[in-house]
Amino acid sequence: MNDSTSDTPQPPIIGVFDSGFGGLTVLRALLSTVTGSHFLYIGDTARLPYGAKSRATVARYAVESARLLESRGAQLLVIACNTATALALDDIRAAVRVPVVGVIEPGALATADAIAAAYPGLTNPDVLVLATAATVQSHAYHAACAALGMSATEKACPLLVPLVEEGWVHHPVTREVISIYLGEAFATCTPRGVLLGCTHYPLIHSAIEAEVRALYSHAVVVDSAQATADAVARELATMPLIHQLTSTPSTFECFATDSVEKFQRLGSHFLDQPISEVQLLDLGG
Amino acid sequence: MNDSTSDTPQPPIIGVFDSGFGGLTVLRALLSTVTGSHFLYIGDTARLPYGAKSRATVARYAVESARLLESRGAQLLVIACNTATALALDDIRAAVRVPVVGVIEPGALATADAIAAAYPGLTNPDVLVLATAATVQSHAYHAACAALGMSATEKACPLLVPLVEEGWVHHPVTREVISIYLGEAFATCTPRGVLLGCTHYPLIHSAIEAEVRALYSHAVVVDSAQATADAVARELATMPLIHQLTSTPSTFECFATDSVEKFQRLGSHFLDQPISEVQLLDLGG
Repeated sequence: MNDSTSDTPQPPIIGVFDSGFGGLTVLRALLSTVTGSHFLYIGDTARLPYGAKSRATVARYAVESARLLESRGAQLLVIACNTATALALDDIRAAVRVPVVGVIEPGALATADAIAAAYPGLTNPDVLVLATAATVQSHAYHAACAALGMSATEKACPLLVPLVEEGWVHHPVTREVISIYLGEAFATCTPRGVLLGCTHYPLIHSAIEAEVRALYSHAVVVDSAQATADAVARELATMPLIHQLTSTPSTFECFATDSVEKFQRLGSHFLDQPISEVQLLDLGG
Repeated sequence: MNDSTSDTPQPPIIGVFDSGFGGLTVLRALLSTVTGSHFLYIGDTARLPYGAKSRATVARYAVESARLLESRGAQLLVIACNTATALALDDIRAAVRVPVVGVIEPGALATADAIAAAYPGLTNPDVLVLATAATVQSHAYHAACAALGMSATEKACPLLVPLVEEGWVHHPVTREVISIYLGEAFATCTPRGVLLGCTHYPLIHSAIEAEVRALYSHAVVVDSAQATADAVARELATMPLIHQLTSTPSTFECFATDSVEKFQRLGSHFLDQPISEVQLLDLGG
């Protein structure tokens, strides 16, 4: 009987982490795109948000989560946090032995593809990137877009995460704040694509798209959650120890560094399904 | 020559801490009220904001700052943070040997005094407390107000801190958000006093007062910064090692756990004077 168990292929373990709940929009895309896997998700909610913190602090926090996921068996890591990807991707890659996928390069690539489909033949298009203050200051999106032949204008939108976390996703104040941020940005550029550079923003994707249209713009609006899930699927296909993924639905476990009740309650909006159990994690911070 | 130096009374050292910049509104009141002293201010900016975190996490963070200030010679501690006072005052008092003054009891007392002055003879007045989610959930203001014969309605206002930190203190969106929060609160109570239960809110004191008046209310609007400074002066007067304070202007040093540049830039708005130097502090979190 034990022999047959050892013949059963074990699902690959994929570690996903974020400062809080936003990365659950990436987990949602991963669950529907990457089947036959087991996901371990860490939300470092005791120290969120990362978006207004310095590079050194974000890197220290992110490396702690990455090492913990590797120690729990993760064979691939997804940094489901724009700020941590922007500020700490190199530190994380240096700290672990498994492949690491961030959200920025996949998001930039998906934007390039969407602009190419909507505006065939257009060269060096302008892209507007909406993100947290720390992501903007890192200019990581500027570099990723430049590598793909696009000119990025990066706009910090510090109020959008608190508005989403307040649950005001269909609220007139949120539309007004989006309108103000977009108005300021469109005064300096005429983008063909608007890239949502924060994992909270997929929840207000339609509100952002509506305000883009209100500015008489036909820019494509792209979020990086699905793009990141596609990048993970491609990466898994290249890994020697992971063969064909089964079509079995993937499973997941969630860990949070602060209140597990709050994580269950808020997180289910981001994941778009109930989160039955969350385990409390002490990262020592 | 050394003898004369040893005769010079040393200024008392007073430790002040907050999760970030908000406590600087308390330091500002302390600097103008408590002369002849030296203040050590810690802003735990690497782990801010405390307002949405659990009691256990906030208590752990606050005790670390309190112990550090005591180890640096502080003879009295001021918790210039409503959330830390609400969630961790007992833990902090148990962890250090020096007296500890929070912001909640002084704020409630100042509100009781202001209501008594405006409405002589009124018994059991209603008070509306505006605060962060964590402060509200602790019901610390409810208890402090009840002890003074007042009925508190506590209203969580999670967007006000981000709006102040965005610098939108005179912005129509901020007035709209205040109007929404106050409208929801006034639907359930008719307060004689509105207590600003967060150290960020003094920067939007006039906007909050204007929206209170727009609701046809004459409620007094009170913030706890000055009330806390008065409580510190009273506490110092009772301490055996600290005699008459000199009239020499007080001095201060600032420490932050994240970017010192950001602390200098944002903090000067809260302190209402330039902050010439900030020292980076590692609390190990």
